[in-house]
Amino acid sequence: MRILLTNDDGIYAPGIAALKHQIQDLGQITVVAPAIEQSGVGHSITFSQPLRIREVHLNKEFVGYGVSGSPADCVKLAIHEIMENKPDVVISGLNMGANVGIHILYSGTVAAAVEAAIMGFPSIAVSFEITEHYADVHDAAKVARNVIERIIKHKLPRGSLLNVNIPSRPANQIKGIKITRQFAHDFKETFDKRTDPGGKAYYWLMGTDKLIHHEEGTDLSAVNEGYISITPLRYDLTDHAMYKKIEGWDWKHIIPEK
Amino acid sequence: MRILLTNDDGIYAPGIAALKHQIQDLGQITVVAPAIEQSGVGHSITFSQPLRIREVHLNKEFVGYGVSGSPADCVKLAIHEIMENKPDVVISGLNMGANVGIHILYSGTVAAAVEAAIMGFPSIAVSFEITEHYADVHDAAKVARNVIERIIKHKLPRGSLLNVNIPSRPANQIKGIKITRQFAHDFKETFDKRTDPGGKAYYWLMGTDKLIHHEEGTDLSAVNEGYISITPLRYDLTDHAMYKKIEGWDWKHIIPEK
Repeated sequence: MRILLTNDDGIYAPGIAALKHQIQDLGQITVVAPAIEQSGVGHSITFSQPLRIREVHLNKEFVGYGVSGSPADCVKLAIHEIMENKPDVVISGLNMGANVGIHILYSGTVAAAVEAAIMGFPSIAVSFEITEHYADVHDAAKVARNVIERIIKHKLPRGSLLNVNIPSRPANQIKGIKITRQFAHDFKETFDKRTDPGGKAYYWLMGTDKLIHHEEGTDLSAVNEGYISITPLRYDLTDHAMYKKIEGWDWKHIIPEK
Repeated sequence: MRILLTNDDGIYAPGIAALKHQIQDLGQITVVAPAIEQSGVGHSITFSQPLRIREVHLNKEFVGYGVSGSPADCVKLAIHEIMENKPDVVISGLNMGANVGIHILYSGTVAAAVEAAIMGFPSIAVSFEITEHYADVHDAAKVARNVIERIIKHKLPRGSLLNVNIPSRPANQIKGIKITRQFAHDFKETFDKRTDPGGKAYYWLMGTDKLIHHEEGTDLSAVNEGYISITPLRYDLTDHAMYKKIEGWDWKHIIPEK
């Protein structure tokens, strides 16, 4: 079993180290992750500047490859240039913070898994909801390992993609697993407008810290209620429900007469 | 009619200027776009540094607001901080280059429209396939205007999102309009490995220039064949087909006994 492990928090982040430690007996693990943190970069890719790959060592031990780009870049480079043989599964995480609802779209962690799925590899994004009440990444990585092991055992099909979120509580207080759908509503973000010492305005994006929406069956409510959330995702964004409606519109005379 | 106009090529790009010129009689247009080019940034958002808004003038005329962030940041800032009244429609473009297939996921142009849809506003991403054979952005903007006008007339519902691509040919040679689905396969990208003067390796991401896949009914094949492609998109990534299958897996004993 060949596993490609990546993330968006960067190759020095505690989440990827904890997860690597927990899954190292599952197979041969290659770590290819951003050299610096890439949270919130979404599915960005780098084509207007070249990418560098650097071997990363910690305490004289080889950790993996640090890439000067996004999580999606890491997956592309790992599969095309770094790994001698293709991975059997791509795992992205353990992210420090939940990736639920529309945050899935902003998440580099999820984007890495999406990129792997596009390239035809089964992939799993794994995130850990960190709160002020609980943030033991090692405990969360143990839970993540159990989930990953089960997913691998069930042979995730080619190009399939699961988004896993682990709630912020000790493993023995997690209520169970829920298979969920993405919570697809606005999170009501705002900006905090401030003035710099020179008198000019600047704006901080303000997320809502702990979300209070409750829509049964969603990733958001599952994590809020203390369950592990597993959401199968796809990367075909076509809105088939809207398709027929648009087809029925009057599209004549858009093009100038020939 | 209030229109928010944005893009990912940046506020000084020719595509946004050409499109603004063509649609200026449709309503009151507010331009809020990245201060510098943001192609390929996907749905990235900026929360680890603050954002700046700068009034942009060209030839002493007020053009709009340049934002030190991504296209998604522009939409958030425009709606929360810049526009006095909410927009009736958000338009992202005219992008210099097609956004079809999985490139939709990498596109800042599409991400801006997705962001608007999430916030509850109807939105349209418009891109122009530029080739060595044809790249007249003013001609393309005229076609884009006709499509946009028709979409507005049909009252795109709240939160709906259309991805429009205009083929690289003179308007009078465009074959017509096709309502399409996203082409959802890998584009077989590769890397060009080079060596810098210091002897170290670097990697350029290589896209395929003109795609040769033909899968009838997709955005990619429509544009390749000379049609305007209109694809309704959604931002709920849940794979409902996979959902039932995953639910049937054995999920017992993942959590340590209490």
